[in-house]
Amino acid sequence: MKNIRIEEVGDINSDFPYLEVFLKESASPFLEIAISEDKELCFKFYASQTDVQLDVDEWSFILSTANDFLPRALKNEDDFLNFSNQ
Amino acid sequence: MKNIRIEEVGDINSDFPYLEVFLKESASPFLEIAISEDKELCFKFYASQTDVQLDVDEWSFILSTANDFLPRALKNEDDFLNFSNQ
Repeated sequence: MKNIRIEEVGDINSDFPYLEVFLKESASPFLEIAISEDKELCFKFYASQTDVQLDVDEWSFILSTANDFLPRALKNEDDFLNFSNQ
Repeated sequence: MKNIRIEEVGDINSDFPYLEVFLKESASPFLEIAISEDKELCFKFYASQTDVQLDVDEWSFILSTANDFLPRALKNEDDFLNFSNQ
């Protein structure tokens, strides 16, 4: 059982949604995974008062979740733009 | 060109060495990768006053470096113990 959870956040001020990664017991994310202007994944660890510990499964899970998220988010944005231009 | 560097640290108080990951321009690591008592990788982000940004290549590079490090560190420790017991 992983000690993290990942939520997708839609932001009307941004072209793309982004992911927030939380430790299970925490209400605040420690990591944001956004899509940059050149459509690449960008991992940002938020400044924190405490250490954050992950095991290798969690590190890999974050990577695979981000890699699955990127093409889906790009496709949704393309679909939206195509729809808007019709 | 990656914006991070990874150093291996030998600690005489610990059975195994560990890795420290730095942003290129920084003298302080933002991440430690150690080997736990049950011989698993353990990633620890240090508490920080500022955000730390990584791209997906850097996230993957940290994972592959850690996965290469683990069996090598375990083997070195085994060799040392075998040598000590001879």
